[in-house]
Amino acid sequence: MPIRRLGQHVGEVVTVRGWVTHLRSSGKVAFVVARDGHGSVQAVLVKADVTPETWDVFARLTQESAVALTGTVRADARAPGGFELQLRDLTLTGPSPVDYPIQPKEHGVDFLLDHRHLWLRSARQAAILRVRSEIEQGIHDFFYARDFVRVDTPILTAAIGERSGLFSTAYFDEGEAYLAQTGQLYGEAAAAALGRIYTFGPTFRAEKSKTRRHLAEFWMIEPEVAFADSADNMRLQESLVVELVARVLDRRRPELEELERDAGALERVVAPFPRIEYTDAVRTLQSRGSNITWGDDLGAEDEALLVAGAERPVFVCNYPKEAKAFYMKENPADPRTVLCDDCLAPEGYGEIIGGSQREDDHDKLEQRIRAEGLPLDAYQWYLDLRRYGTFVHSGFGLGLERTIAWICGLQHLREAIPFPRMMNRLRP
Amino acid sequence: MPIRRLGQHVGEVVTVRGWVTHLRSSGKVAFVVARDGHGSVQAVLVKADVTPETWDVFARLTQESAVALTGTVRADARAPGGFELQLRDLTLTGPSPVDYPIQPKEHGVDFLLDHRHLWLRSARQAAILRVRSEIEQGIHDFFYARDFVRVDTPILTAAIGERSGLFSTAYFDEGEAYLAQTGQLYGEAAAAALGRIYTFGPTFRAEKSKTRRHLAEFWMIEPEVAFADSADNMRLQESLVVELVARVLDRRRPELEELERDAGALERVVAPFPRIEYTDAVRTLQSRGSNITWGDDLGAEDEALLVAGAERPVFVCNYPKEAKAFYMKENPADPRTVLCDDCLAPEGYGEIIGGSQREDDHDKLEQRIRAEGLPLDAYQWYLDLRRYGTFVHSGFGLGLERTIAWICGLQHLREAIPFPRMMNRLRP
Repeated sequence: MPIRRLGQHVGEVVTVRGWVTHLRSSGKVAFVVARDGHGSVQAVLVKADVTPETWDVFARLTQESAVALTGTVRADARAPGGFELQLRDLTLTGPSPVDYPIQPKEHGVDFLLDHRHLWLRSARQAAILRVRSEIEQGIHDFFYARDFVRVDTPILTAAIGERSGLFSTAYFDEGEAYLAQTGQLYGEAAAAALGRIYTFGPTFRAEKSKTRRHLAEFWMIEPEVAFADSADNMRLQESLVVELVARVLDRRRPELEELERDAGALERVVAPFPRIEYTDAVRTLQSRGSNITWGDDLGAEDEALLVAGAERPVFVCNYPKEAKAFYMKENPADPRTVLCDDCLAPEGYGEIIGGSQREDDHDKLEQRIRAEGLPLDAYQWYLDLRRYGTFVHSGFGLGLERTIAWICGLQHLREAIPFPRMMNRLRP
Repeated sequence: MPIRRLGQHVGEVVTVRGWVTHLRSSGKVAFVVARDGHGSVQAVLVKADVTPETWDVFARLTQESAVALTGTVRADARAPGGFELQLRDLTLTGPSPVDYPIQPKEHGVDFLLDHRHLWLRSARQAAILRVRSEIEQGIHDFFYARDFVRVDTPILTAAIGERSGLFSTAYFDEGEAYLAQTGQLYGEAAAAALGRIYTFGPTFRAEKSKTRRHLAEFWMIEPEVAFADSADNMRLQESLVVELVARVLDRRRPELEELERDAGALERVVAPFPRIEYTDAVRTLQSRGSNITWGDDLGAEDEALLVAGAERPVFVCNYPKEAKAFYMKENPADPRTVLCDDCLAPEGYGEIIGGSQREDDHDKLEQRIRAEGLPLDAYQWYLDLRRYGTFVHSGFGLGLERTIAWICGLQHLREAIPFPRMMNRLRP
């Protein structure tokens, strides 16, 4: 019987299986709190009501013991979850020695990460992972409802020029393969076949970066839409972010409470999000004391300064060409810039999405590839998309862990993924 | 206007954007068939009804030209899809030279794979990818409805002993990292935290195998359920497979028709699937002429022979310990065997799922790790799951591409994934 379903069985005798989190005894009455991964329940053992053998089991329980709890479900407003179990039987199915590494005291983060396989059992970490899963399902449902086809782009890819931060591996007799940093180029090919697609998979950066905003392995969602321009693209991003936040508020309230997340801040995330042109953003930043000059990309500090006080995410759009990737479409209204956007989360969380209209002019794209010193040969297949029936199209990449960190209110991305991979962290 | 929605706009003037697939003209009336990734529509251009400029556009159209078609939607039972467009305007938005590589003739598979970015546009390949996406959403919906938490296990992992077929990459100062062949061990840790979980991600095999049943990069779905035994495990697998097949039949009929898939064979996939003990399977195989002896794993030929004539998938369960992985639970009824199952698809498709109850006895598991010569050190975190509150649990791995190949009726896994990776195939 899953603990979350106890409310449907008040008055019945049921068996719950789970792990002990708290123990307490007065000598005549004992309390066992157990979790089963979805919920937590308090079980009451009255010495006078059970056999001596059952009463003796209690003394052998420890934190993380696996138990079977059999008893009557009672509604009790004071109990966590609103229900408790009046035990008639208690079985220790999986003992746990008293040296369980994670105790209810403060541990250093390295110690916790070394024990990530056990740390996941803590209420806070489990809550984050349930929110992560809810967001993931929310993403799939969002795109499915809009007739997007999910497309799994390859992780192992051939060289596309000297780029930094790539993991590489020997690939049979084909030379080196590189772990994908993005599925976008493949997604664009698929958009020409399927109209509107999205990718959902791990991406990799071998960057020697130790900030709280970087992981070596993280998940990205990359939609690509045929016949959509940059304005359509921002509307799609806005709809997605609004729907994800609303869904977590609707379905994961207990987890947000466990995380002590300010739900009010999330409730204010509604459309429309402000759109600020890069050129205007630079002026605003300068007026707020930043040293930024036109042409620079926005650093994390500039992002925070720009969004300070905003209650919704903010789009900064149409950056200088030089600050952005070669595949972004030149802005007809100002050819120094490209049609693109970064979506910056409020509360200092910064960029969660980067998007752009793609350059659909074959010759301009080829020129950009040459100008960046990329090997034209490796991009011929990508240029084919502009050679054969080129089309206006746009897409974006949403960083899953950044989105989770923002929605959960986490200080560091390492808690937003089950087993984080960082520069000095490959285990467990 | 998406082509699939034309039926809701009969009598209205709409604009459809897409790519030309067929052209035909009588000199006074011209026909353009275009696809937009979700559907296909025939547009009729009557010379007498349009401007000379619009009529002249037709002559410039080629296969894969991107076009905007503006006209009145008409119901026409003879037209593909049931509707056609009576054009009043025709715009060529993205020309396509006549040398489009994929012509309506037979191409060799190497040529097609070299042009996979364009091959995806063909009706057959697009249909497969839509079925793939439907199956993926079906998997997420199946587990979400059953309160599973999705858990993304790491791709980059530390060494867990000398295993063959691993891709490796330098990982900062931490030595070599290996691309995961499975997320199962991590999934087991997460099941102790979250009760019931599933993984959904790419896995990797650097095996020098060129069969039609192998890819170097493929996707696996790996559920892991706390307090579930081997019988529960098979029921879960059965429910999943039945639901996925029914969903594709319900929602992707046009794609199955495009693929010329025998839908009748899929309609017969209902529960219960037969369960055959390995020991009985060996006897059956021997009676059918196989040379198999007790203790051997089943090869692809044995699988086909065993399932020959079956209309539903078949579970073969409880294999000899030596034929299976170290983490499977010893069968109390016959300790030479382990509590496990392979789910074999009918029509010769063979194994699509492998599952087992996991060894939950710490000492027996440690003994198996030693017996297989694996480095105990690397498995200490995994042994922790049996040290602290061990629990009966089971799980399985479903091969996504094998499942797709079976449901779509494909001869080779390479068509079941957007950009296949094989021994000699890393591009595009």
